[in-house]
Amino acid sequence: MRSHYCGELNTSFIDQEVTLCGWAHRRRDHGGVIFLDLRDRNGIAQVVFDPDTQDAFNLADKVRNEYVIQVTGRVRHRPEGTVNPEMKTGEVEVLGSALEILNTAATPPFQLDEHVQVGEDIRLKYRYLDLRRPEMFEKLQVRAKLTSIIRQYLESNDFMDIETPILTRATPEGARDYLVPSRTHSGEFFALPQSPQLFKQLLMMAGVDRYYQIAKCFRDEDLRADRQPEFTQVDIETSFMDEYAIMGMAEGLVRQVFDDLLGVQLGEFPRMTYREAMQRFGSDKPDLRIPLELVDIDHLVKDAEFKVFKGPANDAKGRVAALRLPNGANLLTRKQIDDYGKFVGIYGAKGLAWIKVNDLSQGVEGLQSPIVKHIESQVMAVMEAVGAENGDIIFFGADRARVVNEALGALRIKLGEDLSLYTSDWAPMWVVDFPMFEDASEGNLTPLHHPFTAPACSVEALKQNPEEALSRAYDMVLNGCELGGGSIRIHQQDMQQVVFTILGIDEAEAEEKFGFLLSALKYGCPPHGGLAFGLDRLVMLLTGANSIREVIAFPKTQSAACLLTDAPGEVDSKQLRELNIRLRKPNAAE
Amino acid sequence: MRSHYCGELNTSFIDQEVTLCGWAHRRRDHGGVIFLDLRDRNGIAQVVFDPDTQDAFNLADKVRNEYVIQVTGRVRHRPEGTVNPEMKTGEVEVLGSALEILNTAATPPFQLDEHVQVGEDIRLKYRYLDLRRPEMFEKLQVRAKLTSIIRQYLESNDFMDIETPILTRATPEGARDYLVPSRTHSGEFFALPQSPQLFKQLLMMAGVDRYYQIAKCFRDEDLRADRQPEFTQVDIETSFMDEYAIMGMAEGLVRQVFDDLLGVQLGEFPRMTYREAMQRFGSDKPDLRIPLELVDIDHLVKDAEFKVFKGPANDAKGRVAALRLPNGANLLTRKQIDDYGKFVGIYGAKGLAWIKVNDLSQGVEGLQSPIVKHIESQVMAVMEAVGAENGDIIFFGADRARVVNEALGALRIKLGEDLSLYTSDWAPMWVVDFPMFEDASEGNLTPLHHPFTAPACSVEALKQNPEEALSRAYDMVLNGCELGGGSIRIHQQDMQQVVFTILGIDEAEAEEKFGFLLSALKYGCPPHGGLAFGLDRLVMLLTGANSIREVIAFPKTQSAACLLTDAPGEVDSKQLRELNIRLRKPNAAE
Repeated sequence: MRSHYCGELNTSFIDQEVTLCGWAHRRRDHGGVIFLDLRDRNGIAQVVFDPDTQDAFNLADKVRNEYVIQVTGRVRHRPEGTVNPEMKTGEVEVLGSALEILNTAATPPFQLDEHVQVGEDIRLKYRYLDLRRPEMFEKLQVRAKLTSIIRQYLESNDFMDIETPILTRATPEGARDYLVPSRTHSGEFFALPQSPQLFKQLLMMAGVDRYYQIAKCFRDEDLRADRQPEFTQVDIETSFMDEYAIMGMAEGLVRQVFDDLLGVQLGEFPRMTYREAMQRFGSDKPDLRIPLELVDIDHLVKDAEFKVFKGPANDAKGRVAALRLPNGANLLTRKQIDDYGKFVGIYGAKGLAWIKVNDLSQGVEGLQSPIVKHIESQVMAVMEAVGAENGDIIFFGADRARVVNEALGALRIKLGEDLSLYTSDWAPMWVVDFPMFEDASEGNLTPLHHPFTAPACSVEALKQNPEEALSRAYDMVLNGCELGGGSIRIHQQDMQQVVFTILGIDEAEAEEKFGFLLSALKYGCPPHGGLAFGLDRLVMLLTGANSIREVIAFPKTQSAACLLTDAPGEVDSKQLRELNIRLRKPNAAE
Repeated sequence: MRSHYCGELNTSFIDQEVTLCGWAHRRRDHGGVIFLDLRDRNGIAQVVFDPDTQDAFNLADKVRNEYVIQVTGRVRHRPEGTVNPEMKTGEVEVLGSALEILNTAATPPFQLDEHVQVGEDIRLKYRYLDLRRPEMFEKLQVRAKLTSIIRQYLESNDFMDIETPILTRATPEGARDYLVPSRTHSGEFFALPQSPQLFKQLLMMAGVDRYYQIAKCFRDEDLRADRQPEFTQVDIETSFMDEYAIMGMAEGLVRQVFDDLLGVQLGEFPRMTYREAMQRFGSDKPDLRIPLELVDIDHLVKDAEFKVFKGPANDAKGRVAALRLPNGANLLTRKQIDDYGKFVGIYGAKGLAWIKVNDLSQGVEGLQSPIVKHIESQVMAVMEAVGAENGDIIFFGADRARVVNEALGALRIKLGEDLSLYTSDWAPMWVVDFPMFEDASEGNLTPLHHPFTAPACSVEALKQNPEEALSRAYDMVLNGCELGGGSIRIHQQDMQQVVFTILGIDEAEAEEKFGFLLSALKYGCPPHGGLAFGLDRLVMLLTGANSIREVIAFPKTQSAACLLTDAPGEVDSKQLRELNIRLRKPNAAE
């Protein structure tokens, strides 16, 4: 129905007859002539109707915003002085000779051609209108190009796209599982997968060697943290490759993506141990664009009178750390410093000690701070340790290590953002050498990643000292965002049993939950590992979107509802009867 | 960990050292030497260990079937007389110098290296072993290549891959919907999509112009007919293209697939109206490889005494048709003819009348049949109408048209299969000009496709005579299989309302079920249409698989269970409580 897309037109088409289809983006009447901006997914072209072409002119006169029309006309230069250098097609216009109105349109609930502030609820309810806006369409387009680049990269590296089931096994205690009642197996349920983890491992046991899938995953969790009940993951698994080979492959993929989509050369990705990342940045996903670092001063303040420092400095699980903000005394007002004190409170810090470095040559006298008097004998050593210079502000955290890391880690990011301290646009890296386990609140060890992650040590070493064991896991971090992560998996049955034992999973429970995996490990499981990227997150980074809902065609709200289709909804009791379930009345007893 | 895949080795690698990883496919000891067939996804290589390399030899001696091993050695010619021309790598072998056992394997529950008949239940329970068999892996590989070709074709035609939701709106009476209880919206449910139909139409309204997705679809139905609860569809939708442009694009896609995967040139696809297909083949998905056709003889037997013919011939909804099997008298025994009589009974036919044409020159005397005496005055005209020749058998169907079509249509296929009458390997085609509606059992009209299919006539014509209206739908048929189908959709609100009215859907119900679509139609909906291919079906055709379970990595059984992971399963009552549902006790009252 069209000869060209609107956005294609330029001076090379002068005097050609073209037929365009699209939406009336804007209409202006000027000097007895009608100007229509015609929009399709490719761009906008200006079409002019003058009264000489009476029929077309009369029809054009009826066109309102968002009418769907087909226009035929001849491309010509825009008259001098009306060229629009901001538009791709700004040098030309189409002199319309024929017009067909393919569909009319009611006045949209919000204007598309102006960047009006529209409430997100209205945008989601009329998503099909919201997506017509070029900036929204652009995000869908980047997403489509991105998946295409990913697929091509992986397929040219012999990865096979294999679909794994969406209706999978419901595991007891799968607290965040979406459940699907089975009609044929009364009283039983499927679960939607939180990830294809077990299936991709089974594919390795099947000899597939290199698997990938752009996979839908599901998690029924509170959606505060800008998450979606269904999200998409680039899921990758390989056999006979070690962690370095897998990281190299994944790096190559992300480099390709940035080169193709943004023309950015990411180069090599530095690798940093988990321990170093926590120590220097208070985070296992440090944003390396920000040139601020935490410095441990526990050893310097062990004997201080100041209990706030002394306590954590002498506690194996405590930490005392400093964060130097160069030139901070000039960058921050007292009010701002106080606000940062409130900010770290969000992360559990009881306060934010600070020292303004006025003049180091005056020793302690040259330091301005409410706390200096409490650490008089230690403070100059601290200044030296952090490399303080005149004009700096030094912030301090002293608490359980977790609190210090979270509080100063977050403060570091916040200072970087607020003061635009970034030293580069993109800072990719790997975090490696994670601990196998972390302390759960009940005192049991829990896996830092998942229970199939291989340790970097032998079965014996793991048994003897599980708290110290490191895993063969790796996370790819970009600008402080975890882009993806993975690990070498356990491929030997005895190792898997030991890990289950450490996690407090007894044989019966292991059999019940993962029996099929344990069985598969018996029959010749190859060494294997892989990783997964969060696709939505990656699109957000590439497009600069500030919400996951901007990069998904039909997203759900924070309460997991679709405002467009009004899902979820009620269903017939007959349907429930067939599924052998019934609704529980609020507050009903078991 | 490897330098090459096993299957890559050939004489160009002679004297090179290679490292291979894989599974011990078979082991033989011969003349003091150990032969291991090493298998990976690429093929099988023979590795030889002799006692000269003592360490490797001793390890090799421990290797059993399905052990996972890494082998290093030098490629050499196989000794004369031991070359195996049936293997890709049959001219060479690797003289192993080092071997590492990466994992052991228990004796598998079935042998992989022999084509043993193994029960499907066992194969499904140990799917990871079943998939190790080269013929199973090959199917996964064809599937991955197929999706890759499809994506490249569509993307090079400007189609954008866009994901639509899996957690969608549950519609009242969505009888075959899988339901997902919502935790945040108590008492409400999502449904898994039976197809992305409404979302892809909404994307057209959003101006996406060309959309595709390889989409998971879900249908909770009885699985007799070799179906799966989750299946995959190549989903396509475009704006501003008419049915001929869409069919051309889809044809190009399937031609490309067959060329790339099988080296088969499919050429152009003939188009046939639904009416012609039913008349000539008794089916809306005729297998054109079989050179047999139905011939209408209603007009010839209207006045016959024979009530079996006369009744249907004079009934507007009846049909009397003949199917000529050339040379049938020599091809079929009397027993076989009787068996075909039973066969058509499956389709509701009360019997299968037949005439053996012994000698046409003798007139009625030359015909052998139980029915000839009942249609003596008509039978020679019938013989002429069907083009009978000596030696033929003519079969007859006389009943309601639906029964005749199904019975003779099926008989036609059955004869083609049983007697190998195929005139070609691949016979693609389009069926077009479908009726808009069909009679439902309750007397109401129901849509032949779905209620968004555009009619080929005006609103007025549709209102006046809905039974006669044709739709703008099209089905792609290959070898009697419906590969895909689609239609131009209704893009105007008034037309959609008329169709709903004809279907007996009142305004309230339309609003309740499809309110968001009706609303979207108001705001400038472009003319659009599309189609969907069944991916699983296409892989079956391409690989010659005889069950959909052969072309899905982790399929479910006919009762919709996964024997590998034991899904569906029971869940904690705590989980159900959180979802505000409870199990209904068998036979409990509401």
